[in-house]
Amino acid sequence: MKQNEIAILGGGVIGSGWAARFVLTGHHVRLYDPNEQAAGAVHEVLDQARAALGGLLSVPLPDEGDLIFTTTLDEAVKGACYIQENIPERLELKHALYRQIEALAEPTAIIASSTSGFTPAELQAGMTFPDRLIVAHPFNPVYLLPLVEVTVNDTKASEPLTRRACELLRSIGMKPLVLRQQISAHIADRLLEAVWREALWLVRDDVATTQEIDDAICYGFGLRWAQMGLFETYRIAGGTGGIRHFLSQFGPTLKLPWTKLMDVPEFDEGLVEKIAEQSDQQSGRYSIRELESIRNRNIAGFLQVLKAHHWGAGETISEWERVLRSQSFASNLAQDPSQPLTLFECRVRPEWIDYNGHMTQYRYEHVFSDATDAFLEWAGMDQAYLSRIGSWYTVEKQSRFVSETGLGNRLGVETRILGYDAKRLRLYHSMRNLDCDIEVATCDEMLIHVDLHSRKAGSASPEFLGRLEQLMQAHQSLVRPDHIGQPLRELGNGVQIKEG
Amino acid sequence: MKQNEIAILGGGVIGSGWAARFVLTGHHVRLYDPNEQAAGAVHEVLDQARAALGGLLSVPLPDEGDLIFTTTLDEAVKGACYIQENIPERLELKHALYRQIEALAEPTAIIASSTSGFTPAELQAGMTFPDRLIVAHPFNPVYLLPLVEVTVNDTKASEPLTRRACELLRSIGMKPLVLRQQISAHIADRLLEAVWREALWLVRDDVATTQEIDDAICYGFGLRWAQMGLFETYRIAGGTGGIRHFLSQFGPTLKLPWTKLMDVPEFDEGLVEKIAEQSDQQSGRYSIRELESIRNRNIAGFLQVLKAHHWGAGETISEWERVLRSQSFASNLAQDPSQPLTLFECRVRPEWIDYNGHMTQYRYEHVFSDATDAFLEWAGMDQAYLSRIGSWYTVEKQSRFVSETGLGNRLGVETRILGYDAKRLRLYHSMRNLDCDIEVATCDEMLIHVDLHSRKAGSASPEFLGRLEQLMQAHQSLVRPDHIGQPLRELGNGVQIKEG
Repeated sequence: MKQNEIAILGGGVIGSGWAARFVLTGHHVRLYDPNEQAAGAVHEVLDQARAALGGLLSVPLPDEGDLIFTTTLDEAVKGACYIQENIPERLELKHALYRQIEALAEPTAIIASSTSGFTPAELQAGMTFPDRLIVAHPFNPVYLLPLVEVTVNDTKASEPLTRRACELLRSIGMKPLVLRQQISAHIADRLLEAVWREALWLVRDDVATTQEIDDAICYGFGLRWAQMGLFETYRIAGGTGGIRHFLSQFGPTLKLPWTKLMDVPEFDEGLVEKIAEQSDQQSGRYSIRELESIRNRNIAGFLQVLKAHHWGAGETISEWERVLRSQSFASNLAQDPSQPLTLFECRVRPEWIDYNGHMTQYRYEHVFSDATDAFLEWAGMDQAYLSRIGSWYTVEKQSRFVSETGLGNRLGVETRILGYDAKRLRLYHSMRNLDCDIEVATCDEMLIHVDLHSRKAGSASPEFLGRLEQLMQAHQSLVRPDHIGQPLRELGNGVQIKEG
Repeated sequence: MKQNEIAILGGGVIGSGWAARFVLTGHHVRLYDPNEQAAGAVHEVLDQARAALGGLLSVPLPDEGDLIFTTTLDEAVKGACYIQENIPERLELKHALYRQIEALAEPTAIIASSTSGFTPAELQAGMTFPDRLIVAHPFNPVYLLPLVEVTVNDTKASEPLTRRACELLRSIGMKPLVLRQQISAHIADRLLEAVWREALWLVRDDVATTQEIDDAICYGFGLRWAQMGLFETYRIAGGTGGIRHFLSQFGPTLKLPWTKLMDVPEFDEGLVEKIAEQSDQQSGRYSIRELESIRNRNIAGFLQVLKAHHWGAGETISEWERVLRSQSFASNLAQDPSQPLTLFECRVRPEWIDYNGHMTQYRYEHVFSDATDAFLEWAGMDQAYLSRIGSWYTVEKQSRFVSETGLGNRLGVETRILGYDAKRLRLYHSMRNLDCDIEVATCDEMLIHVDLHSRKAGSASPEFLGRLEQLMQAHQSLVRPDHIGQPLRELGNGVQIKEG
């Protein structure tokens, strides 16, 4: 059994999402689906996921794991350390599958179900070693949304296995929420079910169309819920009186007959067609794949906002990046020392594209800035350095924009040192489009070392300077581009350049 | 009656939010609240709103309107064109207030209620001219969330008034959702009520704490709902089979006894205390004002993501900016032509701050880049120019970073022309911190004119060049800073600068 061998059972929307998350974080996935058509759709989801995570994360993803499709259960589960089941929500099907898995899988493998509604106790009925089965219920898109609800039957018996499962889930960038009690539909789906029922009434009774209900969500409370839930939001809604004030105000409305929750609308052909037609009207101008891309781009953007603010789901992403960065850092240390350093890579994100249809100018500077940060970290500027010694500020720079780059292009920055003394450092970056291996921009940058307390120039640490000296020696034989040290060669200096 | 005179009745969380939105968009607000303590809290909300909108919008807000507190209804409503009522949810109180308003207000003034639950028909009972009352139900924070549910009793009679109200609401950056039917609690609050009930059960039965329920929302489906609602999300969840496939899969679970919606939990002292204690545990380390700032920063960030992607609530913000920009553009045209142009202003946003606690380097370039765009627009590059003639690309630039800037600092960019010919343009920007009136950075930039189809250099239009020539003449007498046209003056050129 290998730590990075994963079995995914069922290649629908949820199974594909799991497969993508595991493959893109370097795990080898064997996906079992009796339908041989499944592979095509899974690859489409993998493409979507690759684009979404490339746009979300500021560190390169590790080398992808293998994705192998199997048509027998045996091939999928043999040797796997973690088995994620995503077959239809029919208890007798799941029971039959678990019996087969128990006969084929490693005895210590974790069996996790993506079920939306069943409890572990219901799922475990008939198993020889029931404690190895847990619920790990994710949310679509599985490769992008951090939440996974983890539920066990017998807390005590499952404790070591739950810990192992949560560790694995965290390492692939997820936020496991371990439930205190097993309950049908866990937590989130109960809330979703409540909204779903009410929304069905509103459509059935012609109070609102699907578009209007969606607008009522995403121009209003949906924007709140991407960052604070129900209770934290209402705590604020009470004003400075807080949650108690809110409860005293809002509590009484529970007696009003606002909702139609007391009954379930008949889910007949008429209601299905009404919803489907309204939904076509609302969203039919986009294909499902286009809607997926739009959704992913938006959610990745929200996660970046939260990450920048050190809040909520953004913290899950930061933690994930720390894991990924420590992996990629190790491989950077093995570079040829006489060549420019390659410490930073990324992909061109949707929000970097401007009205000219290419990466906008200041995003080149953004990439160079991230490359400078990666260099400073490489040379020894960590959190301790920042708080005890100081930091480097850019005081001047000169950039050349050589070639356009487009959405999704993979960019890599090569960095060399041009000079340094105790308080100053001059770096030269060359940015390359790695998809077609051409230089797209250069940046010549002067930094000064600053004491963070006095905010004045001060010396870098001897260790840091030692690292710079080693690099100076190593980079001495590199050929220097002619334009380094030249003024802006253009109009308005009294000098006319020749026409290109 | 003046178009920009607004009366706000009630200065609680919702009333303050309305007041802030109106004042910050240049309206004069008279706020009536019998509680003389209200003014302090309203000013705190106004401060929050000013910071949030300053961070959200890429155009400067207009001059603020006046905010006057009144202790009589008469002073507030006399002369107002729009009256927003935000008093407690007690029908007899509202009826009494409306009777008074009718006696005091202009006959054509719109009376709008922020009620969460009552229908216009219920509110209008006893009024002399009932059709002038509508529901305009906003969402907290009112100054940031675009949604406002607009409901009328008699659609026909209220049509011109509804149109006027929606125009006003759109002009202050909102998204009016006009309901087809009046219904208790409108649309969004019915959905919220459903979630609230289910959440109360989960807390009461110790299935989950307030923190866990909030996590289940904002690490999962909350991130989806900030950009697509229930139906569009489920359309995607069906995979390429779409909404019909999803409905056939998910419909049957309605029969399962997942939710506890059939009954209302007793809202007794015990449940109130349990929720309050869990909420303190979850969020008590932040004050309500701190939580508000965090929430605003996050939501403003989400709205910027959506704006960049031309999606959903982001489109409402873009439209709002267009309105604001056309106002500020008019004032820019009145500048002294012999001075540098001041076409761009903004505030330093939270996500622009780096680990050094100041605006990170590439965000200076971001601001310069926006200033260049504002210049090109000023000189005549609009959508038609871009599609028919071409665009300007930056090919080289040199920036100097003179001084640090911090969160919230107001920045303004002064732009002058250094040279141009048919295909080239050289601009020089000076960025100033307007809070303390010092120069913080400069940027010397060379652009070439590009045909968007061939993606090669091509001539700008005669009109555009005419505009540049006028500016060249006007800027000829400006004093030129010495550093223009100098190479990067530093280490590694073989030249050592003297120590500073």
